Amino acid sequence: MSQFDEIVRELKTLDLSRMYQGDFFRTWDKSDQEIAGVFAVADALRNLRQRNLSVRMFDSGLGVLLCREEDPRSRFPFASACNLLGLEVQRLALDRTSCGESLWETLNRASFMADVIGIQDDTDPNQGHAYLQSAAGAVEEGFQNGVLEQRPTLVNLHCGMDHPTLALAGALHLIHHFGGVEQLRGKKVAMTWSCAPGGASPSLPQGVIGLMTRFGMDVVLAHPEGYEVLPQVEEAARANAQRSGGSYRRVASMDEAYEGADIVCSQSWSPCAAMERRAGLQGDAVGLQALEQELLAQNAQHRDWHCTGERMARTKAGKALCLPAGGVCQAGEMDAPAVAHCRASLCQAASCQPYIIAAMIFLTQCQRPVEMLRDLEKRGRVRKKR
Amino acid sequence: MSQFDEIVRELKTLDLSRMYQGDFFRTWDKSDQEIAGVFAVADALRNLRQRNLSVRMFDSGLGVLLCREEDPRSRFPFASACNLLGLEVQRLALDRTSCGESLWETLNRASFMADVIGIQDDTDPNQGHAYLQSAAGAVEEGFQNGVLEQRPTLVNLHCGMDHPTLALAGALHLIHHFGGVEQLRGKKVAMTWSCAPGGASPSLPQGVIGLMTRFGMDVVLAHPEGYEVLPQVEEAARANAQRSGGSYRRVASMDEAYEGADIVCSQSWSPCAAMERRAGLQGDAVGLQALEQELLAQNAQHRDWHCTGERMARTKAGKALCLPAGGVCQAGEMDAPAVAHCRASLCQAASCQPYIIAAMIFLTQCQRPVEMLRDLEKRGRVRKKR
Amino acid sequence: MSQFDEIVRELKTLDLSRMYQGDFFRTWDKSDQEIAGVFAVADALRNLRQRNLSVRMFDSGLGVLLCREEDPRSRFPFASACNLLGLEVQRLALDRTSCGESLWETLNRASFMADVIGIQDDTDPNQGHAYLQSAAGAVEEGFQNGVLEQRPTLVNLHCGMDHPTLALAGALHLIHHFGGVEQLRGKKVAMTWSCAPGGASPSLPQGVIGLMTRFGMDVVLAHPEGYEVLPQVEEAARANAQRSGGSYRRVASMDEAYEGADIVCSQSWSPCAAMERRAGLQGDAVGLQALEQELLAQNAQHRDWHCTGERMARTKAGKALCLPAGGVCQAGEMDAPAVAHCRASLCQAASCQPYIIAAMIFLTQCQRPVEMLRDLEKRGRVRKKR
Repeated sequence: MSQFDEIVRELKTLDLSRMYQGDFFRTWDKSDQEIAGVFAVADALRNLRQRNLSVRMFDSGLGVLLCREEDPRSRFPFASACNLLGLEVQRLALDRTSCGESLWETLNRASFMADVIGIQDDTDPNQGHAYLQSAAGAVEEGFQNGVLEQRPTLVNLHCGMDHPTLALAGALHLIHHFGGVEQLRGKKVAMTWSCAPGGASPSLPQGVIGLMTRFGMDVVLAHPEGYEVLPQVEEAARANAQRSGGSYRRVASMDEAYEGADIVCSQSWSPCAAMERRAGLQGDAVGLQALEQELLAQNAQHRDWHCTGERMARTKAGKALCLPAGGVCQAGEMDAPAVAHCRASLCQAASCQPYIIAAMIFLTQCQRPVEMLRDLEKRGRVRKKR
Repeated sequence: MSQFDEIVRELKTLDLSRMYQGDFFRTWDKSDQEIAGVFAVADALRNLRQRNLSVRMFDSGLGVLLCREEDPRSRFPFASACNLLGLEVQRLALDRTSCGESLWETLNRASFMADVIGIQDDTDPNQGHAYLQSAAGAVEEGFQNGVLEQRPTLVNLHCGMDHPTLALAGALHLIHHFGGVEQLRGKKVAMTWSCAPGGASPSLPQGVIGLMTRFGMDVVLAHPEGYEVLPQVEEAARANAQRSGGSYRRVASMDEAYEGADIVCSQSWSPCAAMERRAGLQGDAVGLQALEQELLAQNAQHRDWHCTGERMARTKAGKALCLPAGGVCQAGEMDAPAVAHCRASLCQAASCQPYIIAAMIFLTQCQRPVEMLRDLEKRGRVRKKR
Repeated sequence: MSQFDEIVRELKTLDLSRMYQGDFFRTWDKSDQEIAGVFAVADALRNLRQRNLSVRMFDSGLGVLLCREEDPRSRFPFASACNLLGLEVQRLALDRTSCGESLWETLNRASFMADVIGIQDDTDPNQGHAYLQSAAGAVEEGFQNGVLEQRPTLVNLHCGMDHPTLALAGALHLIHHFGGVEQLRGKKVAMTWSCAPGGASPSLPQGVIGLMTRFGMDVVLAHPEGYEVLPQVEEAARANAQRSGGSYRRVASMDEAYEGADIVCSQSWSPCAAMERRAGLQGDAVGLQALEQELLAQNAQHRDWHCTGERMARTKAGKALCLPAGGVCQAGEMDAPAVAHCRASLCQAASCQPYIIAAMIFLTQCQRPVEMLRDLEKRGRVRKKR
């Protein structure tokens, strides 16, 4: 049986009915079968593309990229996924004041021909999820009122609370690497803060602990005091761990986290409290600069939080797998030997991200994903004429 | 007979020959049959898309978006229309100094593979139309000289004098709502200025009075002293009204305009004289800021020009239809009850805009629009595979 | 025999095997047959498009535009070429600090679905080529490591050392104009500096002398003292001239260069030493401004270096052909009579550029270009439905 046939056979066993015409916001709101469905469709789309088959299911249509600040780290995976399926990306920049009525109007007026909206807004970890929900409400109401001819799917490209597309890409890479989701059971994942200038939201660490715990892995989180992640995400991680037979705990140092780890992921992030302050300072350039100085000084107290070759040597057989973080690895989070160790694995994991996003779109747009995949294979349209 | 067949049958009766290989600048330069043709093609394209049929008539090609300042309100409808027909949008930013020889060269060098150019430049209401004409001259000459392999269609996305795509979208919505263009006869349209910070050009109010008067409607315009629209547009409105049996007049207050109105449209715009001064101040930051302060102060004298729920109650049965304006409705032009009243209708009208633009492209690019529409239906290519 | 058949017949005689899965950086690294292959494929693609046949060989895929500063002069030809072949352009902005590890990661993470990367970076003429090579190394390694599913082609959109796409577009225009590459033998080409504010790199003059010398033409370069081009490019030009039976020499004045010239090309460029200093001053606003002032003052000493109608009269029969430069011709490099003389020819030459870029992509992506062109003709897919 071909790899494609195996994937499709697995897909047939899953209940994905709740995904159709829905959105994808947080992994912990999805069932195990739904997560497995995303992996299976991502693998199937990749398999077809590798066999030079086009999976364009749209012959026209837009993918709207809604974001505060343009970041190629979100744009490229999203644009790649949209392009793969036949949608063209148009960016819509929203400022902080776009909410309520004006979010409703702006979003609907940009979505007349949109089949998907990717949203990237992690300015305030406490608000990001609510923002996604109000955006979903706006297009849902627009669809019900006849303003929109189709209900676009919303995909969370990181919201301050979760980073589902990158966390799932990492997990899919682990599944490929270790030879199946069952092989992840008991593996140790070290998610650690590391010192680098600039401060993202904790979307990624939260995404990692909120996802990896559901595969029966032992997930540890390490960060300096003051860099705590959102308590409700830790609760979700604990609940996952209990169901899956894995574990979740916080440890006090990077060394402890790395000790014997099978998988490591390092990223610098800002304290949630600081992000909340930053969100409140929008437009106040002086206040913002003072805050950034304060954060840099706070960061600088933790220069020893650094992913080094020496620390990598403490991991399982000195060969832990690296998961991709949001930023460029060299920006300070890792030293040169660690980068040399991690680079290829980290990028291989990131290469799953466009397929993960495409799978999310696929499953929310297709009522019968199994039949659709079979049809795309049978159609046999080449992606690149040779 | 299906709705599509009815539309096509109507289209067959119209003389649209002058539109082929032309441009679309001002509605009042077009015949009634040509305006009817745009409506019919917009409806036909929408009908096909709603039946999940792709209307991509281009298998490659660019749609150039030529604009001073990027505005998603122009970009999304244009990009949606281009994408629907199979063209990819590339933006070309032109600064004030691009004119004459350099406009010629810049425009031609961007248009080697362009089938359409959407132009948005309303910096000076007195100059916008001349700018469109010189752009048309540039690509016409480029085409004649063998520089361009095809003559791109120019579409006015608002020029300071007219806003044909949004005005026509509003009119098409009225036709749908009231059940036919004949049903518009005698309806009262209130086009009013309203107080909001920031100042667009009077493109939209001019577009509305220059178009709605041709359907036999009673069009009134209300604005504070000093916010007069261009006299030549008022002349066009009067001429339309005379031909169509409608009327055009200015009234002194918002209350008078709203009294018994079937349709209302509110927008803040800058005085033409101020826009002329603003255009002359390009590059002079201090002068520009002083002018903006002056305009805000002038605006502030007219805070009572505001679309309120109370005023909406004065309209016909308290239920006037709202037409979309250029800006976000919540920005100050309307109070909360008025927004609640208008929002859906306003967005439904705006949803016609991509189809209006697509129809303009279609009619200037297809020599036999009726046969083309029949072919697209017969081709039966699905837009979204299911 | 049709023009298309003639082109394909010529193509069959050429050895293009080394181009497959390669990159296109500098014309002088390519064989005469490879240069002839680019011309033939560019002509073939244009011939098909003129016959309204779509040459989309990709059904999805990205073309990444990697650049420091966005410039429509590079973006439009690249986007046109990508669109023609079926790829969608996504821009990736790289700042000066993106190099080494972070270039590796950034480039690979943007290229998961990229079939081509166009690179425009002429900040430092001495570094540009090395930058291209390290970018090629990054994607090559990513492909070998399984990070990328395909090895994207890199196309140099000007690197400070060469400007192959515009120089080749000019040469192809000359071939069309004079009736064959053999007709170029003995023609005089005057490549001259001319005075205009702002300073590009010497990519274009270097591209012109490095390419035109291989067709047996007499190429002269004229510029004021201090504006010397890179010595290694002059060496390449001399080597070309020796092989082809043409010549390359520097002359001291514009008048001497124009005397009896068949072809002229004027452009303002910055001294290499100044560009090196500018590259070193990135981030130092005060230093940069001081340098620009110094350069303007240096430029102003050479106001007589100006392409005038009077000078054009000195050329062969007063009718020299103009080749396109990077900037807008009116910006100061030419006076009004010279612009009137040159404009159409200059834009006709520029119109070849998208086809040249498409040919570069085509030849690096297709193992059997002759069969592919035949297939595209036989497929008969229309570009624009009529």
